Order: sequence, then structure tokens, then C-alpha cells
Amino acid sequence: MNMIGENAKTVAARVDGARQWRLLMEVAQYGARDDGGVDRPALSAHDVAARNHLVDWASARGLSAYQDDAANLFIRLEGRNPDLPPLLMGSHLDSQPTGGKFDGAYGVIAGCEVLAAIQDAGIVPDRSLEAVSWTNEEGSRFLPGATGSSAFAGTRQLADMRDKQTVDGSNVGQEIDAVIAATRAQRRSLAAASAFAHLEAHIEQGPVLERENIRIGIVEGIQGVMRLRIAISGEAAHAGTTPHALRKDAVVAMARVIDTLDPLTRESEDVLRLTFGRIEVQPNVPNTVPESAVMTIDLRHPSGEEIERVFALIETAAIEQVAPCTASVERISMVAPVAFPEAVLATIEAAASALGENARRIVSGAGHDSLHLARICPTGMVFVPCERGVSHNPAEAASSDDLAAGTRVLAAAAMALLESPSS
Amino acid sequence: MNMIGENAKTVAARVDGARQWRLLMEVAQYGARDDGGVDRPALSAHDVAARNHLVDWASARGLSAYQDDAANLFIRLEGRNPDLPPLLMGSHLDSQPTGGKFDGAYGVIAGCEVLAAIQDAGIVPDRSLEAVSWTNEEGSRFLPGATGSSAFAGTRQLADMRDKQTVDGSNVGQEIDAVIAATRAQRRSLAAASAFAHLEAHIEQGPVLERENIRIGIVEGIQGVMRLRIAISGEAAHAGTTPHALRKDAVVAMARVIDTLDPLTRESEDVLRLTFGRIEVQPNVPNTVPESAVMTIDLRHPSGEEIERVFALIETAAIEQVAPCTASVERISMVAPVAFPEAVLATIEAAASALGENARRIVSGAGHDSLHLARICPTGMVFVPCERGVSHNPAEAASSDDLAAGTRVLAAAAMALLESPSS
Repeated sequence: MNMIGENAKTVAARVDGARQWRLLMEVAQYGARDDGGVDRPALSAHDVAARNHLVDWASARGLSAYQDDAANLFIRLEGRNPDLPPLLMGSHLDSQPTGGKFDGAYGVIAGCEVLAAIQDAGIVPDRSLEAVSWTNEEGSRFLPGATGSSAFAGTRQLADMRDKQTVDGSNVGQEIDAVIAATRAQRRSLAAASAFAHLEAHIEQGPVLERENIRIGIVEGIQGVMRLRIAISGEAAHAGTTPHALRKDAVVAMARVIDTLDPLTRESEDVLRLTFGRIEVQPNVPNTVPESAVMTIDLRHPSGEEIERVFALIETAAIEQVAPCTASVERISMVAPVAFPEAVLATIEAAASALGENARRIVSGAGHDSLHLARICPTGMVFVPCERGVSHNPAEAASSDDLAAGTRVLAAAAMALLESPSS
Repeated sequence: MNMIGENAKTVAARVDGARQWRLLMEVAQYGARDDGGVDRPALSAHDVAARNHLVDWASARGLSAYQDDAANLFIRLEGRNPDLPPLLMGSHLDSQPTGGKFDGAYGVIAGCEVLAAIQDAGIVPDRSLEAVSWTNEEGSRFLPGATGSSAFAGTRQLADMRDKQTVDGSNVGQEIDAVIAATRAQRRSLAAASAFAHLEAHIEQGPVLERENIRIGIVEGIQGVMRLRIAISGEAAHAGTTPHALRKDAVVAMARVIDTLDPLTRESEDVLRLTFGRIEVQPNVPNTVPESAVMTIDLRHPSGEEIERVFALIETAAIEQVAPCTASVERISMVAPVAFPEAVLATIEAAASALGENARRIVSGAGHDSLHLARICPTGMVFVPCERGVSHNPAEAASSDDLAAGTRVLAAAAMALLESPSS
């Protein structure tokens, strides 16, 4: 158990909710959509502009900025002993194409705000603290997601991920190099990566906190995520002349697979999550029977065994339902569920309590960069409510007050971890 | 009944199958795919190159070339009386994205070969003959298809079709103007369009002739085609955090609609044709519940009443199956079934018989430019076999001998129509 000391309370009191909101709104301009949302794909020009905005913000405050081989960006408040592994407070700046202002960006900027609050409190900790933007958490422009945090944590090899292609046909490795060249931060080797702990503030992206009128979610763990690709092969044929008995229609086969699998989600108290998010049809013209249909499946559950069980059902359905077409099922990635360490949960709980915030423990339905960091260092997450639980949507909304409360808890927990006996 | 006279037989004898095959293979180079197929979208650079290849071919033979406001291309053998409406022999140069060498191109080049055969026979008919390439028969790059022939026949207004967009976001009117500017043919007003008759040679695009070992199909008529667009609206949401009970998943709704409608095709002795050829999903990323899915339906049947009955079933299914999403059903186009006049059928039959070719009557499953021409002049079609009935596919294949036989019948029928009492 970490006690919440005077330094922790002093820094929390210096958290400036208005300053944090201003920086959030500034960053939201990069990739702003007409409907109020944000479309800021990983490694895009908008992503680079948002990174450089934070670099300039850091520079104006006398903080330094680094980036590693995975284009992860670190804003650093140097401690008295620069050789000690730093405490990290990170999330991501990339968004969904139909995303909002808060998913990811809040956690990065909350980290920056904690650094500013420590400076304003006139405190120089022994250990350095860094706010981090991890590269490509969303995975919507290229797979797998959490590119930066998984490379940093060593749960995946950066070299493998560099070989992939983006949905627009670019090479990921070349894009990473171009973003590093365009970002005004110093280079740091991924091989030298080290972390004392990782804390991540995030909007809940679900309805629980708002419904229960609770401002702080202490995240116990994250459900597992498997990503699949099903490729269905049929035969292109003339839409007017080909009798249905002779067709191999990839779209009809795909519809049958979806229609077979969707009911699975209603068998498990709505805990299983199954999403057919991306579909590509060839040749995709009105008057030709489709020769191929490729779809992704995003499959999540708090239990890794349940994920494997459903995966087996998906494989069976894909093979049984597509005849006379054929199908191949490819596992793109599997991230096992994670449970955060009790010591970190207790510290966040103590911080919320010391600051007078009501809080509850909660399981994250979404994957986060913390899932990877948890493999290499003590990790925890702080959730704050978002309107109607809506996220990955331009209508995503959160109040400045809730976001400030989350950052105060983040600040107090970070300072408490720094002052813990293990530090 | 038109008799097959000496001129008709002389011209048919002058048809040069090897020359025709050479020109077909030359034109197949424009938009050639690595797999042996052709990808030559309407109004593309490949389309322009194919047009200019024919213009150069015509010029080398002393034939003239014209194009009208719809970018239809006419290769003209001038008759003794240039003021008489010409006999047209046309089809189209555009292809499906996964198309073959013969669908459309054969009919245009067969028309050219007949002109060459008439020249070689030393005959100058009273009435002019023109080989025609009608613009955008396929409709795969923009809708509606048969742009050129429908504008020529007045079954649709060119001004309306000019306002449309291509799938790659270009304005159709601007593209038509650019193609006219890039094609080395003289201008001719669409308002001055006139036709004495229209004959179209085409591969069958179905398995009947090959299976019955018959070389000539005399096309009695063309089934009707309705094109629809169903737009399903749901709500974008996070794939990990949004319970299924709260989702409005446009892809799941779309799959349900397809899976409901597909069985209709098995209720009618496989005469009904229903194709879900084009699907666009938004935002189309793996980890967001899709907010919208738009699909096209291509619906064909020899009976216009049956098409209307199935349309009503589609509307009902779209509304009943998509909840909690919503759907809108748009009729993009309806082309009623057509029956070609008995006088033309009998002339083609007499031509096949005079040339010793076995022939049978057949209904076309595919739409063709002749469907529109039939509204304004006596029209008929000659089918030749294609391998396994495969079409709209790179593997589309036909033999040079069969194609030459089809062109000989076309030539004899054309000459017979020119010499008929009504001419």
C-alpha cells in the first residue's frame, strides 16, 4: 500500500483543468472533422502536427522531447537521478477515422499536465517522469494496433510490424521513418527502453461511470482481443446470365457467415464482443457476381479461454457456411486479457480517496497501450466518464471537470508511486 | 422475310477471321490485366486509347470516324446516298474491372470487319453502314450503364447522366468532354442521331450454345434489369466497449437482408437473377461498429411484372430486417424487358441458314446496348458461344472460328436488311 503524501497532494492541487482543456482543444484541431469529431490516422500528417504541437508545448516549459525507433514520443521532466527508469504516463494521439477528441489524446495530455503541475509545485523528483504518446494504438490504418507500446514492451517485434502495409498501401516502416524525420524531438534507441511504472488516464468508453454518477474508474484489467481476417473466395460471373445454381458468390457466403456468428453474442449475457468492422469486396461493381469478400473480426472477452472457444466456432462457421465458395481464416493477433497489479490499484484508490473523489473498480472493454506496458512494469489506469458511453464516434464527449479530476488522481498516484518504498 | 442475296453471300465470304482476331487482340492490349483479362473502365485512358486505335484502323482503310455528344464512336462506310439513316452494327469497348477480351469489344470489331469485307468485295451500298462503340455499357464505373446507347435512343436524357459521379469521384459530364477532346474523330450532334437498323454481335455469356454445340444464337429478346441501392444507417461505436444490446451495427443488418433475400432466387426455377455486387462500409475499420453499409442490387427477370413483385419483397425485407438500424431503398434504374422484331430474327435466321451455320433462338440474360436501340429502330443480336459460359471474368474465352462465323452471319444479315423492300 502506498500512502498519499504531502507532495502528492500538492501536485494534485496544481493540476490546472482549464490549461489541460485548452491543450486538448488545440490538439483536437489536427484532423478535426466538420461534425466536431477527429480523424487523425496514425503516422498521418495530422498525427505529425499533433506531435510537434506537444514538442513545442514542452519546449516552452523547458521540458525535453524524445522519440524512439517506433516513433513513440516522450515529453520528459528530468529527475535528480536521470539514470533511474522513468515513471511513464501515456496513451495515444492517433484516432479512429470517425473518432472523437478524447480517446487517447486525453491520456497523453493528462501526462503533460502532471508534468506541468510538478513544475508549478516547485518539486524536482529523484526519478524522471515522462508523458508518452504511443504510436498507432487504434490499428485502424494498419494492423496490429498498439504498434508503439507493444514494440516498447517487447511483446511484438518492431521489425515484423515495419514490414506491414497501411490500408492506403504505404509501407509502415517507411512511414515510421518519415514521421521521426518530421517530428522535432531527439532520437532515443528502443533498445534502451526502460520503465519504472506506467499510468494511463482514459475516458471509460462505456456507460458505467456516468450511469452510477462516479467520477473515477480504477481499472482492474483489460479484456483480451483477438483479430481475425476471413477471406472468402468465389468466382466472378455475369450478374445477368449466370444461374444461381452455378454461382460462387462471395458476398452471399459472407452474409451467411455473419448471420451465423452474430447470434453467438446473445448467448453470453452480452459480455462477448464480436465486430465485423472492415469489408472489402472484389471487383465491387453492381453487375458482377463478387469473386472475393474479405472481412475482419474483432473478438473480445475477459476470458482468454472463451476467446479461443469462440475462435473455434468462427473457424467452423467460415468453413461450413461458405460452400460452394472457400474460406481461409487468419489469426492476425491475439492479446491475452490482463489484470493490473493490486499494489497499483490500491495506490490509485488511495489517491482518489485522499482527493475526495468517489471511485469504483471496473474492467476495461477496450484494449489500451497499458495492456502491453503491464508485461514489463507495474501498470494501472484511471477512467473518467464520457457522455452516454459513446466513443469511436465524432459525438464522443467528456466534461472538463471530470477530465481534471482524473488528472488529479493520476498526479497523486504517480507521486505516491515515486515515493513508495520500492522506488 | 428478307432473302439472302448474292451481295450478302459475297460480303460474308470476304469476312477475314484472322484479320478480325488480330484487331481484337490489339484492342485487348488497352487495359490488359496480368491474368489475361481486360480492365478497361468507361471513359478511362485505356478506353480512349482503344477508341483511337479503331480511328487509326479506319483511317488506314479510308473510312471516316465520328463521335457524338455522348462520346459514342462511329466508324462509317459511306453509302451512295449519305442522307439515308445508316445501318448500325455496334456494341461497346468498356469492360468490367475483372473483365475479358470479348464482352463488347467483339461486337464493335465485328462491325468493323463487316465494313472491311464490304470494301474488299468492291461493293458500295446505297445506304451507309457504321460500326459503333456505345459509351459505358457496363455501368461499373458509373451508373446507369448503357449511357451512350440510351442517350442515342432517347430512352434517357444525356444531361441527367452527365450530372452523375464516377466511383472514383469524377464528374461524368467532364469525363465525356475530356474523352471527346482526346479522341481523333469528327464531331456529330446527338440531336441528328438516326438509325435504319441496329445489329449487335456478342458472345453469349452463358453456357447454352456451347453445351448444345450450336454456333449461332438468334436473340429473341433481353430480360429486364432493375438496379437498386440500399443504404443502411446504424451508429459508429467502440468494438470493445459497446454491448451488443446497445449496438446499431450496419454490417450485421446488411448481412441479414442479404441472407433473407438470397433464397428468393431458388423459388423460381433459377430464372430470377439477384446480385449484391457492390458494398461500401463506413468507417470500415476493424475495431469500430460500422455506422453505415450501402449495397447495390442488380435484379433481372424476363418478366417486368416479376421484377416489380421482387422489388416489393426487397423493400419489405430491407425495412423489416435492419432494426435497430434504418434503411432506405432507392431505385436507380429500370430497363423493361424487350422482344426483338420477328422480321429481324427471320433475317438473321435466313443468313445463318444460307451460310450453313446451325442456329437456335435464345433469350439474353445480360442487358445490351441493343435493348435501347430496339426502341427506335429494327434491332437484332447474334450470339456466339463462349467457353463454359464464363464472362465478366478474366478467363472469358471464345474461338476465332466461332467469332468469324458470327461476323459472317452479321454481314449477311446486314446486307439482307439493306436490300429488303423497306430499305
